[in-house]
Amino acid sequence: MKDVARHVGVSQATVSYVLNDTVDEHIPEDTRERVWSAIRELGYRPHVGARQMRTQRTNLIGFVTDQIATTPYAGAIIKGAQDAARQAGKMLLLVNTDGIADVERAAIETLLEHRALGIIFATMYHRPIVLPPALREVKTVLLDCYVEDRSVASVTPDEVQGGHDATEALIKKGHRRIAFINNADPIPATFGRLKGYQQALTEHGIPLDQSLIRTVAADSSVACYDSTLALMRPASRPTALFCFHDRMAMGAYDALRTLGLSIPGDVAVVGFDNMEVIASALHPGLSTMQLPHYEMGVWSVQFLLGATTDIQGGDGPIQKVIRCPYIERASV
Amino acid sequence: MKDVARHVGVSQATVSYVLNDTVDEHIPEDTRERVWSAIRELGYRPHVGARQMRTQRTNLIGFVTDQIATTPYAGAIIKGAQDAARQAGKMLLLVNTDGIADVERAAIETLLEHRALGIIFATMYHRPIVLPPALREVKTVLLDCYVEDRSVASVTPDEVQGGHDATEALIKKGHRRIAFINNADPIPATFGRLKGYQQALTEHGIPLDQSLIRTVAADSSVACYDSTLALMRPASRPTALFCFHDRMAMGAYDALRTLGLSIPGDVAVVGFDNMEVIASALHPGLSTMQLPHYEMGVWSVQFLLGATTDIQGGDGPIQKVIRCPYIERASV
Repeated sequence: MKDVARHVGVSQATVSYVLNDTVDEHIPEDTRERVWSAIRELGYRPHVGARQMRTQRTNLIGFVTDQIATTPYAGAIIKGAQDAARQAGKMLLLVNTDGIADVERAAIETLLEHRALGIIFATMYHRPIVLPPALREVKTVLLDCYVEDRSVASVTPDEVQGGHDATEALIKKGHRRIAFINNADPIPATFGRLKGYQQALTEHGIPLDQSLIRTVAADSSVACYDSTLALMRPASRPTALFCFHDRMAMGAYDALRTLGLSIPGDVAVVGFDNMEVIASALHPGLSTMQLPHYEMGVWSVQFLLGATTDIQGGDGPIQKVIRCPYIERASV
Repeated sequence: MKDVARHVGVSQATVSYVLNDTVDEHIPEDTRERVWSAIRELGYRPHVGARQMRTQRTNLIGFVTDQIATTPYAGAIIKGAQDAARQAGKMLLLVNTDGIADVERAAIETLLEHRALGIIFATMYHRPIVLPPALREVKTVLLDCYVEDRSVASVTPDEVQGGHDATEALIKKGHRRIAFINNADPIPATFGRLKGYQQALTEHGIPLDQSLIRTVAADSSVACYDSTLALMRPASRPTALFCFHDRMAMGAYDALRTLGLSIPGDVAVVGFDNMEVIASALHPGLSTMQLPHYEMGVWSVQFLLGATTDIQGGDGPIQKVIRCPYIERASV
């Protein structure tokens, strides 16, 4: 390090700040560049072991997920977390575990060995989890998941508000016969969105009609296509349709077209997720509820770093719930 | 470590093997569990610094990407790499950089400081890159990208073969008037798939008709919708359509339906990407070319670990090219 400092003509402290990416010290970008090129030129490699033994701190945040990095649904969670980390001068180190317990354990141990400041444990969809034991030893935020006893801080989407606002968007356009194609899986999104749907109907004095509610397998666009056909019997046809997610809405679009029904003229459609590759590509564009993936990612990092002053409701670790905004396109 | 060994009743070597996840030593799962619970009970945390200074090796593979982890297009690259890493007893540590040079440099430095065995540098879509300088210092594989001077090993999809086989699948069903909606971006996929399209036509004695080729912005489903309408003028209507990617095919489907044309009865359609959320959800299911994302991920790790004996074509580091298989559904 002495050599690098001499080579560049700066103090050893400056070299150290650059090496440690210390954002608080205002080192000109120009100087940083010169330090880094001297490092490369002289072949100097700071040894993390030696360094950490002195400082016992790193700028790393561990991010452990079941399968967000490998699936197309929730990448914005990672984007939000990494943007917030970068903003704070930290780096997000990700491990995608497929939810295999051994791999989770090894990932957490590795991140702890490398002195991560804390760990964000994130799931691809909102669900309860069993906490990997090693997370009890470190500052942890659960992202898009929670433990049943609420003993660890978490951040999740407001499924009830989302279901409520989706339904209300339709009611506000004058619809009263609003069908709901729900997911068959017993997960928080299924229960929460149904509850929100019912609340919105009740608030607006619309009696619940069970015949307008169907449940289908979430990954079957065919089942959603068939359910839409069944719901659209001429005698009792609803004028609006709320679909559990955008992929289901894609199947519903096909069914409505097959029946010669126009969107939104004959039937208005609202989805959930705001999955861009689908919602903005459909004709007409799909109005939908946005899962607050990005915002949850941001919040989790800010909480971990102590940068958020969120008020805790009641006792125990904070269970943050974030609203799902309504994204209007042309299907309602 | 002595305490842990005594507590469990095993040798210190065994504790060390468990800590290091040494897969070669056949330590019963039962023993591993007991070691880990003793570690937790006794609050022992192995110090990676001390350990690494002795061994100078870790079981970590660095994976640096512009935005695969945060976008819905190429997650299978990470899945393939992580499966191959796991198979070899290694762990993939990911950093998603948004392609920001400073962040890339910091990510690579961090991974090197933590003694990663090597680094996989992966891009969301197939393209040439400027190599981050720090990668010259470490064993590196470029994944879904390459440097123009071919001075670093790489693995990329065979765009020409993909374009060829997509076109040939249509020719084999008897089509001779085959339109191609290509991407307007000057990237390898654009040039390669066009070349493959032309090769297949030539091989089958079909003259090239430039009026059947359109280029549109890759992210505009509206432009693809409009191009399809324009291509389908009754007097000169093609009987088949090859779309640059599945999202474009989604726009083409809409346009064909608007025109009252059936798929594949009036017009056969083939896409590219095999993006499951679209290709298998469309009605009829979309026949498409699969990008070998998973296979490229596997290959990159195996190459990094020296586990593949791929023959190198010519001089310089290997430039591996992997075939895109044809996935048949119901649109052809």
